[in-house]
Amino acid sequence: MQNLPLAGYKPERTEVSVKDMTVGGREMILMAGPCAVESEFQMQEAAAAVKTAGGTVLRGGVYKPRTSPYAFQGLGREGLRYLTAAAKERDLLTVTEVIDPASLEEVHDQVDMIQIGARNMQNFQLLKLAGQSGKPVILKRGLSATIEEWLSAAEYILAEHNPNVILCERGIRTFETSTRNTLDLSAIAVIRKISHLPVIVDPSHAAGHREYVPALSKAAVAAGADGLLIEMHPHPEEAKSDGAQSLTPSELQQLASELVTIAASMGRSMNGAGSGLDSLRQKIDSIDSGIIELIAERMNVVKYIAREKSPDRIRDHNREQEIIKRLGRVAAELNCPAELVREIYASIFDHAIKAQLQDKAHRLDSAAYGR
Amino acid sequence: MQNLPLAGYKPERTEVSVKDMTVGGREMILMAGPCAVESEFQMQEAAAAVKTAGGTVLRGGVYKPRTSPYAFQGLGREGLRYLTAAAKERDLLTVTEVIDPASLEEVHDQVDMIQIGARNMQNFQLLKLAGQSGKPVILKRGLSATIEEWLSAAEYILAEHNPNVILCERGIRTFETSTRNTLDLSAIAVIRKISHLPVIVDPSHAAGHREYVPALSKAAVAAGADGLLIEMHPHPEEAKSDGAQSLTPSELQQLASELVTIAASMGRSMNGAGSGLDSLRQKIDSIDSGIIELIAERMNVVKYIAREKSPDRIRDHNREQEIIKRLGRVAAELNCPAELVREIYASIFDHAIKAQLQDKAHRLDSAAYGR
Amino acid sequence: MQNLPLAGYKPERTEVSVKDMTVGGREMILMAGPCAVESEFQMQEAAAAVKTAGGTVLRGGVYKPRTSPYAFQGLGREGLRYLTAAAKERDLLTVTEVIDPASLEEVHDQVDMIQIGARNMQNFQLLKLAGQSGKPVILKRGLSATIEEWLSAAEYILAEHNPNVILCERGIRTFETSTRNTLDLSAIAVIRKISHLPVIVDPSHAAGHREYVPALSKAAVAAGADGLLIEMHPHPEEAKSDGAQSLTPSELQQLASELVTIAASMGRSMNGAGSGLDSLRQKIDSIDSGIIELIAERMNVVKYIAREKSPDRIRDHNREQEIIKRLGRVAAELNCPAELVREIYASIFDHAIKAQLQDKAHRLDSAAYGR
Amino acid sequence: MQNLPLAGYKPERTEVSVKDMTVGGREMILMAGPCAVESEFQMQEAAAAVKTAGGTVLRGGVYKPRTSPYAFQGLGREGLRYLTAAAKERDLLTVTEVIDPASLEEVHDQVDMIQIGARNMQNFQLLKLAGQSGKPVILKRGLSATIEEWLSAAEYILAEHNPNVILCERGIRTFETSTRNTLDLSAIAVIRKISHLPVIVDPSHAAGHREYVPALSKAAVAAGADGLLIEMHPHPEEAKSDGAQSLTPSELQQLASELVTIAASMGRSMNGAGSGLDSLRQKIDSIDSGIIELIAERMNVVKYIAREKSPDRIRDHNREQEIIKRLGRVAAELNCPAELVREIYASIFDHAIKAQLQDKAHRLDSAAYGR
Repeated sequence: MQNLPLAGYKPERTEVSVKDMTVGGREMILMAGPCAVESEFQMQEAAAAVKTAGGTVLRGGVYKPRTSPYAFQGLGREGLRYLTAAAKERDLLTVTEVIDPASLEEVHDQVDMIQIGARNMQNFQLLKLAGQSGKPVILKRGLSATIEEWLSAAEYILAEHNPNVILCERGIRTFETSTRNTLDLSAIAVIRKISHLPVIVDPSHAAGHREYVPALSKAAVAAGADGLLIEMHPHPEEAKSDGAQSLTPSELQQLASELVTIAASMGRSMNGAGSGLDSLRQKIDSIDSGIIELIAERMNVVKYIAREKSPDRIRDHNREQEIIKRLGRVAAELNCPAELVREIYASIFDHAIKAQLQDKAHRLDSAAYGR
Repeated sequence: MQNLPLAGYKPERTEVSVKDMTVGGREMILMAGPCAVESEFQMQEAAAAVKTAGGTVLRGGVYKPRTSPYAFQGLGREGLRYLTAAAKERDLLTVTEVIDPASLEEVHDQVDMIQIGARNMQNFQLLKLAGQSGKPVILKRGLSATIEEWLSAAEYILAEHNPNVILCERGIRTFETSTRNTLDLSAIAVIRKISHLPVIVDPSHAAGHREYVPALSKAAVAAGADGLLIEMHPHPEEAKSDGAQSLTPSELQQLASELVTIAASMGRSMNGAGSGLDSLRQKIDSIDSGIIELIAERMNVVKYIAREKSPDRIRDHNREQEIIKRLGRVAAELNCPAELVREIYASIFDHAIKAQLQDKAHRLDSAAYGR
Repeated sequence: MQNLPLAGYKPERTEVSVKDMTVGGREMILMAGPCAVESEFQMQEAAAAVKTAGGTVLRGGVYKPRTSPYAFQGLGREGLRYLTAAAKERDLLTVTEVIDPASLEEVHDQVDMIQIGARNMQNFQLLKLAGQSGKPVILKRGLSATIEEWLSAAEYILAEHNPNVILCERGIRTFETSTRNTLDLSAIAVIRKISHLPVIVDPSHAAGHREYVPALSKAAVAAGADGLLIEMHPHPEEAKSDGAQSLTPSELQQLASELVTIAASMGRSMNGAGSGLDSLRQKIDSIDSGIIELIAERMNVVKYIAREKSPDRIRDHNREQEIIKRLGRVAAELNCPAELVREIYASIFDHAIKAQLQDKAHRLDSAAYGR
Repeated sequence: MQNLPLAGYKPERTEVSVKDMTVGGREMILMAGPCAVESEFQMQEAAAAVKTAGGTVLRGGVYKPRTSPYAFQGLGREGLRYLTAAAKERDLLTVTEVIDPASLEEVHDQVDMIQIGARNMQNFQLLKLAGQSGKPVILKRGLSATIEEWLSAAEYILAEHNPNVILCERGIRTFETSTRNTLDLSAIAVIRKISHLPVIVDPSHAAGHREYVPALSKAAVAAGADGLLIEMHPHPEEAKSDGAQSLTPSELQQLASELVTIAASMGRSMNGAGSGLDSLRQKIDSIDSGIIELIAERMNVVKYIAREKSPDRIRDHNREQEIIKRLGRVAAELNCPAELVREIYASIFDHAIKAQLQDKAHRLDSAAYGR
């Protein structure tokens, strides 16, 4: 990597800021929308669904690179209007793919971010222009690009003094046919070791089937992805492209609620809670289940701790104070009231003691009966 | 998959039970140990480290399939003794690889599970013998095996009336060279769709470098893996094989503590809390951070909910009762005291109301000043 | 392939004609030259070497798509002058790669053919422009493109009413690292079955090492390639790119002389005998060796024939007449004097009889002695 | 390759001799037969077809490694009898696959060579036993084995003091789906550089479709393969396995006749002319066409030579004498009568002079008329 002075490793990871959004920071960003912009109404529905789910960015292709010249090639300028209008109405950011100098110029002043697709990852002229444009760029990994080649492609953009590069893993080509491509989540760990650039994941193109998207999305977040770029269509069965791999709005909402706990376990917040009472309550339910799971796990671990300690030292006030202090700091950073933490942990500590005593008694009984 | 009557999809997923352990159930199983058994002392150290981290199974190869005939081929029967003695001392289960009829016979009565390696995935004679042995089998995916071929290999074992097959994804061969192989986590989702067999993940062989193992382990759990098979060596720098990809004992302990929250967010418990005060407290700290993250996220979502509701209906007692009732059920299943849930949520609800009122006031202020 | 009305199979294979040259006909076309145009003198030497070897087309990149932005990017317009001047002096055709609309426009009126490289195979905008240009296009296969996707890319050019598409196989990306890429010669057979387009082979990029180029070139011709596109540099050790895989002029000359007999065995002529007494005599020597090999093989087969026939019917004048007649027709098509064929075969038939008689005598002797 | 003292490069290539046959020498060996032995009659037909085509070895699987446990697993000992009896009747050698210690012991004294299949390439125990058996071994490359790993597998056999290893390239696993696997012919060139072992090619498993087998067979010979292992079935449509990729007897005969000229152009003889008047005459016709092609090409090159020489030196008796002398030596090595060479080249030289004079006259005319 000695030839990548700009994309190579730096101790401080880069954060790409687009208006209020920051990619590569504490928040895990959700970007979603249809593969292709098809109509005004479709985009309005899509934008509403993305907002409900808690997404920050609306995606939608208006210039489509298609394998066949006879496939739907995108609505162009008309589609761009639908995309931007729908996003504006829901207060979402926008991203769309550019495929050549003309499309880049066309979308430059209309969208918040541009995307360079897998097939154009080594279209070096386009990379240079994207660099010169100064726009934030989502750079997808080529289907058979090594991670090193991918970073070299990023270097083309960075070398034009545009630091706003977000890498996007979307699956590589392998022999396996049960998925469209093979999502390479190791790439996230490798990127974090050899580069400072933020990296998001597109699970949809890799999966090729919507039913695999939730598992891959969760795995991506757990692997350390800074965001997700998910295909969602208001009516996938009518989609002009990639319908099979597009989530429905309710599937996206469900997934988003489940991602919250994974993100939290990675020390990350989901950006934007979403909108709509149903959707928000779905998130709360998911979070609550997560809290109970953790508390139950905690109670379990506490029992093992008790067994390691001498019988007269079940309660360790110093340790309790330390925990409260540490969690107070964590809570403060997260704008969570310290008082709440204290209250909750008072209860937790009390019940922990009870559980430990019960466990001891149970074990003594068992021992007494030779068990 | 019509030709896989035994390995193909069934509504009820199979759980493979080995003594007290169940693979494929609610618990996420941790198996760890060195690539190769090298000495009695090495295995004692390894067993202690696995136990401390909360692992359930000690792995260690005594018959090694090596690319070169001149590489270390394993200690054989002597190594088997070291493996089983160390595991017994720490109350761990054991797994070791078999490579031919002779090694299968040798280990049959000594270990709890046998492993069939990637290179032997289509050694059909060995698969049949493994089937006839009745032992639980961890069947690794071949380096270039499709998922369908992998399940067909499992079918060979199942067809001999041995239902105890655990699949193990360990990376496939692709063009990418920054990792040893490419871990195919999509395979977990695919297996869950087309089969009923439990599936675990070996992140170490795929990664080839220990620094990528934690991220891949977390991703595997989030993708739905039923367990992890991790290479750990007391002194990786002295390992006779695969040292570069082996975690140290403390790295394994650290990883295990971090996995708890991911597992919890997937509705899974880590099997065995581990041993040793330090290790258990490390787990508690990780769980506590996870609890605070979730509570903070909850507070955040709650604010958005308030904005959707009419000003006079901030507090919704019915909803609160529903939540308490639902979480009581969840807690009961997890052996977590209902009383604790009630106490905690009383505090959470109170603080949620406070936060909502503050947010409203803040927003009214902002509106009043035209912001 | 039902969606490729233009690139799909037709009974009559397409021949692409460029001035005097026809690709896809009886002649096997040799195209060669350096990866990158570096200087006027380099191109003069290269052109001389290509001419000597019997090549028809001088290749040389002036706009280079490079993985790193810091690698040599080509001489542009200046390089174009060197390429075309050197080719003109030696009466060679020219081909160079285009990478974007600007480079296409730049080279359009200067070169005889344009090349679209592997990395741009799905740069659909460039494909359309190449189609509109009407220029003959060499379309390289993408590193991870399926044959179907490759033909779909060709369809983009054909759909713009440009029928002059020459496909070029150059290796695909696999796990094997001893070659740069894996040359997929099956692709030639597949293309011939599902398309009518001519297909040539670039063995240099696939091999990555010059020592593998001769074997791959011969294999390509035997697989049915319509031509070869070979990297050759007057001084490979000084090349600015791809030196390791470039043949020297004398290696190219040697290879060309050896290819003559393989091409002949495929019913193909090498286009252009070459120039320079040494080079031409090298070709004659190679052809002469081939003739003797075939005559020896013929004598061998004839002996087996004799053993199948009754002893009194060694000479079969009807069969001889048939052979002479058939070969006369073949010779006529190839502008080879019928008289020469008659003379040669008179000798061949005579010696065949002698050999058969000797063989019989020898076998009778052996039989008489019980052997 | 420093770790492969036995399989690594040596200046002198190894020849593996089995009875009268030598693999790795001047002869290009043809091995053919059905994937699986199915019946006595099938094998009699197959043996007759192999003999007619000029093959030396009859192949046929009796222990079949099958992806599914429910697929036909081979006839075992019964099939072995059919294979060996049919081969004996036609004076052919035999090869069959072994899959475990038991099958190896079973076939050891019955067949001339054993084959280790792609799936067992890293079944190291089997490799060791194959080494200890002392039998000639055809070692197929694993579907995802690097060339280095393949040679390491060979090293296992060689290390048991069995030098009779024949490597067999049969295609590797890639993303391309129009063929079953991707035949890696570069492997032949690489093997010849880094090893001394003979290497043959199985085009059938790589192709997966019989129509691609001829092109791949020719390419393999031109790439330097020491032999071919081709699937041929008397009635492919009735085959129990691999019917789609099996040639018919007449297709094999046709292919063999066409291979003769390619082999000759590589300085190789096809081993065994074959049997049956029709088949032998087909070979003669193919050879004769090859001779005429070469003579026509020679006449063409000669014209170019004439243009390079001064007008008074059309005939160069010294050069003619040199050619005759050199070809005499070549002919002697091939047991071809020197007298025949002299007669033929007397005619060739005469006609060459005539053609050169005609060409000169024609060019002078053209020049005179300003053309």
